[in-house]
Amino acid sequence: MKINDYTSDQIDAAVSAAENIANDWAQSSRETRARLLRGLADVLQARRDKLVCVGDDETSLGSVRLNSELDRTIFQLRGFAEHVEDGNAFAVSDDPAIAGAPPLGRPHLTRVRVPLGPVAMFSASNFPIAFSVLGGDTASALAAGCPVVVKAHPGHPQLSREVFELTKAVLTQQGLPEGLIGMVEGAGIEVGVGLVRHPGIAAVAFTGSFKGGTALWSHANSRPRPIPFYGELGSTNPVVALPSALTGNAEELARTLAASMEFGCGQICTSPGLVVLFESADADRFESALRDALQSAKTHTMLTPSMKHNFDAGIARLVATPGVQTVLAGESTNDDHASPRPVIARTSAQNFISEHALHEEVFGPACLLVRVQSIDEIVEVLNAVGGSLTVTLWGAEVDSPDVRRITRCATQIAGRVLFGGVPTGVAVTASQQHGGPWPASTQPFSTSVGYAAMDRFLRPVALQNPPAWLIERVGQPC
Amino acid sequence: MKINDYTSDQIDAAVSAAENIANDWAQSSRETRARLLRGLADVLQARRDKLVCVGDDETSLGSVRLNSELDRTIFQLRGFAEHVEDGNAFAVSDDPAIAGAPPLGRPHLTRVRVPLGPVAMFSASNFPIAFSVLGGDTASALAAGCPVVVKAHPGHPQLSREVFELTKAVLTQQGLPEGLIGMVEGAGIEVGVGLVRHPGIAAVAFTGSFKGGTALWSHANSRPRPIPFYGELGSTNPVVALPSALTGNAEELARTLAASMEFGCGQICTSPGLVVLFESADADRFESALRDALQSAKTHTMLTPSMKHNFDAGIARLVATPGVQTVLAGESTNDDHASPRPVIARTSAQNFISEHALHEEVFGPACLLVRVQSIDEIVEVLNAVGGSLTVTLWGAEVDSPDVRRITRCATQIAGRVLFGGVPTGVAVTASQQHGGPWPASTQPFSTSVGYAAMDRFLRPVALQNPPAWLIERVGQPC
Repeated sequence: MKINDYTSDQIDAAVSAAENIANDWAQSSRETRARLLRGLADVLQARRDKLVCVGDDETSLGSVRLNSELDRTIFQLRGFAEHVEDGNAFAVSDDPAIAGAPPLGRPHLTRVRVPLGPVAMFSASNFPIAFSVLGGDTASALAAGCPVVVKAHPGHPQLSREVFELTKAVLTQQGLPEGLIGMVEGAGIEVGVGLVRHPGIAAVAFTGSFKGGTALWSHANSRPRPIPFYGELGSTNPVVALPSALTGNAEELARTLAASMEFGCGQICTSPGLVVLFESADADRFESALRDALQSAKTHTMLTPSMKHNFDAGIARLVATPGVQTVLAGESTNDDHASPRPVIARTSAQNFISEHALHEEVFGPACLLVRVQSIDEIVEVLNAVGGSLTVTLWGAEVDSPDVRRITRCATQIAGRVLFGGVPTGVAVTASQQHGGPWPASTQPFSTSVGYAAMDRFLRPVALQNPPAWLIERVGQPC
Repeated sequence: MKINDYTSDQIDAAVSAAENIANDWAQSSRETRARLLRGLADVLQARRDKLVCVGDDETSLGSVRLNSELDRTIFQLRGFAEHVEDGNAFAVSDDPAIAGAPPLGRPHLTRVRVPLGPVAMFSASNFPIAFSVLGGDTASALAAGCPVVVKAHPGHPQLSREVFELTKAVLTQQGLPEGLIGMVEGAGIEVGVGLVRHPGIAAVAFTGSFKGGTALWSHANSRPRPIPFYGELGSTNPVVALPSALTGNAEELARTLAASMEFGCGQICTSPGLVVLFESADADRFESALRDALQSAKTHTMLTPSMKHNFDAGIARLVATPGVQTVLAGESTNDDHASPRPVIARTSAQNFISEHALHEEVFGPACLLVRVQSIDEIVEVLNAVGGSLTVTLWGAEVDSPDVRRITRCATQIAGRVLFGGVPTGVAVTASQQHGGPWPASTQPFSTSVGYAAMDRFLRPVALQNPPAWLIERVGQPC
């Protein structure tokens, strides 16, 4: 499928159309927004078979996974519709006037939140439905009152176009202007740069590679007027196995982890890339069971040839790093179109800490086992990771000073801390936090999954001594 | 007063001391934090006369202003103590588990907020008490559970040291480690750069010039691990006079505005630097009255010689811009130690829009009157400003399509929109929003005044299936 590289005139047309509708959409009613979100969910449901078929052709993710991704996307669009209707996202705080001079006296102040304006939304390759044209970023921006210009991902152009055509039909059917949701295409970074630098764009939502993300982030920051850039750039998602967790349970946990690693062929932002465990016979058992489980794993081709290329390069760098032992070697076919084989490697805590190359994410089915000798070393390893979407703790169910220390360390470097289980599978709910310190996120206070994702596009504004006509409108979209 | 340029070893010592206490302070009780904040307020109150005397010697701001600034600072420290005690800042959201697979099923998720770690706090020159050693940034960071390393402002070194000595005494008296609040000094930017780039610093709070602020912001972004940089960099604070406001009221409003311009010799982040008004006889009356009021204004020397230098340069640039008429000329003494004279200039909307030099803030007692012919031109002028801490609307009390349009445009470019009054004087309260789109703030979603300022230092974390021991602690500082 040929990718159209949009010209700057075409980018300008899409952004200008979004700008023209921005004021109206910012003032649209909750009902109008909820109806659009539900209409989009309904049309995805109605065209499910076609979309899964087109998506599988382009991504090799398979119909089971793509159907479940579609379920998630539909659930999410409907969830944002409900969230707009219940109005919590537009919650207001109000401080009545107090007579007298400051600091004791004060004017009447009402704090509202206003939509930013057109959002540039960069689709991800690895969730061609849930983080693409009508994914969570688009849903949350529309719900917040912002038009969206989608940068389609070149990994699934046909699916993007199918979904975009359905989107346009819903807009027309509901009597909404086409400019509310636009789309541009581009194979390289130029179209994305043009979008991020366009003066009409008010914020950027990005999920993708560290390299592409930091480049676009720099462009957002070097505009004459920098704008918020919400980027999710990569994560190693450490799993920490405390000794009690592995006792009598090493094999089962290894199989659970193997399934998490295999999910989506490891092309998942929350894929577990690092396991931290104490040097012990249990650790040996865990390692053997993990190797056995992954040796026979079925994998599928990666999302794009360049991802396979980068995976092979990442593995080559990993196993060539001093102090790293290979536990399960992949097959270095150097064929960018072949299915990758899972890779497991092992190193010591001290080696991990000193070798910065080991802190980088290898996107795909790869995992590095870090053997530690002490709680201190666990803390040092997590601090060396520095920023991650998740940290998973196994064996932290019972309170102790060590458990508290590891838990606190985990909350310092991650946006989500799991007690048991595996990091893949991110619930769409109000309390979700999908984001974390750099490089997990460029804006670690924000989440790109869950209903708090709307907060990214609603800026607080204090109204001082608002007149009666405005007070009447407060709490409604404005 | 000689400024000590701290060495990198001294900076490292201050940050390391803050790092060492960070975990303990993050887990300190609400009572401990509130006691510290109140202790700091009490000691400022007890040493009021001395501090005002030292401050006036260094800043020329006068005892009336410095006493009221001290009132504000004491009120603010006590306000944050109450805010910590009532616990709203640590509010938690909780989604119970739902059985079944996602998207309908989900694990138990609890969203808490955790303190970031050591905060580098850059004092401002223009509020030597309220935005300095024990100002709002320090108070909000301590309240959030973060240690602070203050970069003292070279404009008031003696006052900074006096306040810092009082701070150390309070820490000792309360049995808290010295490292909780550190201070470094430096005359140039190097010490600040060293602080921002130190790996132990987790966030930066800055109030100051556009030039210094953007330089430090770039350093925060180019660290191996970028960190949140909360910078307030400058603002022109447009005042928009709709025709009805001036009718029969031009002279009174002009005198009110003159007082706001004079306040602190215009060295205030919310000083009104721009007035937008319709071409009319009322506008002429307003202009004359403003000129008359400011002609005889008493001014005092500026905070530092370099500020006077920059003010003179800014005025020279302003009046030399094509299409700008001088209404009230200052006195171009080119003496960096002389008191400045207020300056008023006038230009047309179209000239303002096309001359980018006119969009820059002139820090000091200067105001540019922009004459417009239509509501469209008001919108264009505000959009040319782009980002401001405040926009003040005069004559927006009665609803109309034009009033709604201007109000919406104001909320798009400012963090606070005032209906009547003047922008100087910023209430410390929960609904305050002191921040706005670039260049008003590098993080337009955050506020540096009011209790929401704590949010800058508390990052959301989702706890997935938290064990019983952790659930017991949720909602407490962690």
